[in-house]
Amino acid sequence: MDERVREHAAVLVDWSARIETGDDVVVSVAEDAHELGVAVAEALGERGANVTTLYGSDELSRAYLKGAESEGRDFDDDPAVDRAIFETADAYLRIGGGRNTTATADVNRETRQAYAKARKGVREARMDTDWVSTVHPTRSLAQQAGMAYEEYQEFVYNAVLRDWEALAEEMAEMKAILDAGDEVRIVTERDEAPDTDVSMSIAGRTAVNSAASVAYDSHNLPSGEVFTAPYATEGEVFFDVPMTIDATRVRDVHLVFEDGEVVDFDAETGAEALASVLDTDPGARRLGELGIGMNRGIDRFTDSILFDEKMGDTVHLAVGRAYDACLPEGESGNDSAVHVDMITDVSERSRLEVDGELVQRDGTFRWEDGFDD
Amino acid sequence: MDERVREHAAVLVDWSARIETGDDVVVSVAEDAHELGVAVAEALGERGANVTTLYGSDELSRAYLKGAESEGRDFDDDPAVDRAIFETADAYLRIGGGRNTTATADVNRETRQAYAKARKGVREARMDTDWVSTVHPTRSLAQQAGMAYEEYQEFVYNAVLRDWEALAEEMAEMKAILDAGDEVRIVTERDEAPDTDVSMSIAGRTAVNSAASVAYDSHNLPSGEVFTAPYATEGEVFFDVPMTIDATRVRDVHLVFEDGEVVDFDAETGAEALASVLDTDPGARRLGELGIGMNRGIDRFTDSILFDEKMGDTVHLAVGRAYDACLPEGESGNDSAVHVDMITDVSERSRLEVDGELVQRDGTFRWEDGFDD
Repeated sequence: MDERVREHAAVLVDWSARIETGDDVVVSVAEDAHELGVAVAEALGERGANVTTLYGSDELSRAYLKGAESEGRDFDDDPAVDRAIFETADAYLRIGGGRNTTATADVNRETRQAYAKARKGVREARMDTDWVSTVHPTRSLAQQAGMAYEEYQEFVYNAVLRDWEALAEEMAEMKAILDAGDEVRIVTERDEAPDTDVSMSIAGRTAVNSAASVAYDSHNLPSGEVFTAPYATEGEVFFDVPMTIDATRVRDVHLVFEDGEVVDFDAETGAEALASVLDTDPGARRLGELGIGMNRGIDRFTDSILFDEKMGDTVHLAVGRAYDACLPEGESGNDSAVHVDMITDVSERSRLEVDGELVQRDGTFRWEDGFDD
Repeated sequence: MDERVREHAAVLVDWSARIETGDDVVVSVAEDAHELGVAVAEALGERGANVTTLYGSDELSRAYLKGAESEGRDFDDDPAVDRAIFETADAYLRIGGGRNTTATADVNRETRQAYAKARKGVREARMDTDWVSTVHPTRSLAQQAGMAYEEYQEFVYNAVLRDWEALAEEMAEMKAILDAGDEVRIVTERDEAPDTDVSMSIAGRTAVNSAASVAYDSHNLPSGEVFTAPYATEGEVFFDVPMTIDATRVRDVHLVFEDGEVVDFDAETGAEALASVLDTDPGARRLGELGIGMNRGIDRFTDSILFDEKMGDTVHLAVGRAYDACLPEGESGNDSAVHVDMITDVSERSRLEVDGELVQRDGTFRWEDGFDD
């Protein structure tokens, strides 16, 4: 086994999920993630944890959904076994890496949305565990990224096998600025696309220093972003980084906000998929997240939100569900069955301001060399 | 997809497990059983059942056990998530078909036994569900059977895609004889091996017409055997069909019984693996099962107990755990952490008697043509 696979497993189990002896750990292994699954199982055995392994297959999900669709079945909104699993588990480690990133492309959007709605209770129980989501580098993901397989492996391990303590320290600076601030404004200028000029309130909200560990309320490996839960959004945003929503390629999204809600939108491609997301429920038209990418081990977009949104010199906004970690104790933020991230490049001709003070300009933070030039 | 895979899924879901709308179904998919997993997921979606999919990987199990072994970890005897799964599930469909039937060969026997002991509660909860075990024909199983891949597929589907109602009717005759009888005697004569002459009591026990359906208390697909829970075994048995115990090949087992217990044993190869089984616990030296193979769709031994023990013209005995279905309500039979089947060919120079009356001679039952010749 490639030693990097074992290192990946150790980061996941120890740094990210903080697994201890006796923990009840649920691991979900995608179709082609077997090798990382083996390394994680070995690490969990070494730590003295209990392990239950789920098969996270998009092809099985497609078959189930198509079967239900063909007979016009409703979905049970309280699937007892899945609820029992996540109500009992201490930690949930999701290892992505299927055989085909578009495996569910031919399932009706209504079916997928009905299923997502019915699974809300399971999703909430899952998010109450110490959950961490990562991927094993597969040929399918390499293809989605437009990269050779070995090149993609290198990319993934550069993003995952980092000095997380050092990155956590740098991100703490950004978190301190957001925690103290009331309003964020993001401005970018582009020649052949709409400008971005959007403001949002973050008063009373707590930013998460997403250092790829549950100890930081951070649930992605890799991570490397600071995010919060904004509201009262005003203005317009152009997202120049392509993305995939429900297996549909979506490019050049433009959103217009008034009183915190999306009142107008378009996209160069995939507008229908975007519209479907925004129509899921009332919360799907409001922001659930503002995130600032700070992982410079990620040096290119690979059409995977797990990596793209963490890339240094990017900012992302998500419509839909807000994370509880950003909210005052007992308060609930924006609620929705969806959470869809959209990314904009801020490496050039951009400004990020908090309460009118410049924090990042053209991709450089104010504590970095080059900011004053 | 090969249409036989969909037919296999339909037999498993409808005939074997009797899945109905709203059932909570747990499916375990082995490493190379993906295709049958897809067909089963589709069928479960059509029936309107809930599905939770486990990844049944021997390679992950090996990694976990080796990890625990390397750190000298004890196993938790009440793993909460697995218990919750099987206490909540209505049905459990196990789809075997890994990449390597000897994937756990280098795990210490003590480790495997300690794990099996710790999992007793989970196993019991699992056996309280409507569970069914089947396999997807894989290259690894074809190799174990000594067959070409397509030849092996043909073999599996011949065994699985049968007229189960017709076979169930024939097996009902055998069940009636065993239910009415008090003592079974099996005699075989061989030139170059010990003769078999063994007697056992079956008084008060109920035979199972194992017609590959939970409706018949039958939990294997394929099945096609009638089995009961004998006791007070006396005599000796020679098992001429090879088997694999804990990844070790075992041949020509000879057991001597006194007062219901194995008092002497040997094997041409694998005697150590056999000894280890017999030393697991006191129940491991007593019989838990007498089974009579009646599936003539299975026409050869393939080193897989799922098929071998169902083959027509064979009889098998298992040391270890008895199945509750054979016992009077509320009574418990032989208890053990193990259940290991051993098979003997009765197609030639053999007699099966119940209370002194000949039931099968040289592989022919008394209700069949040729018995009186």
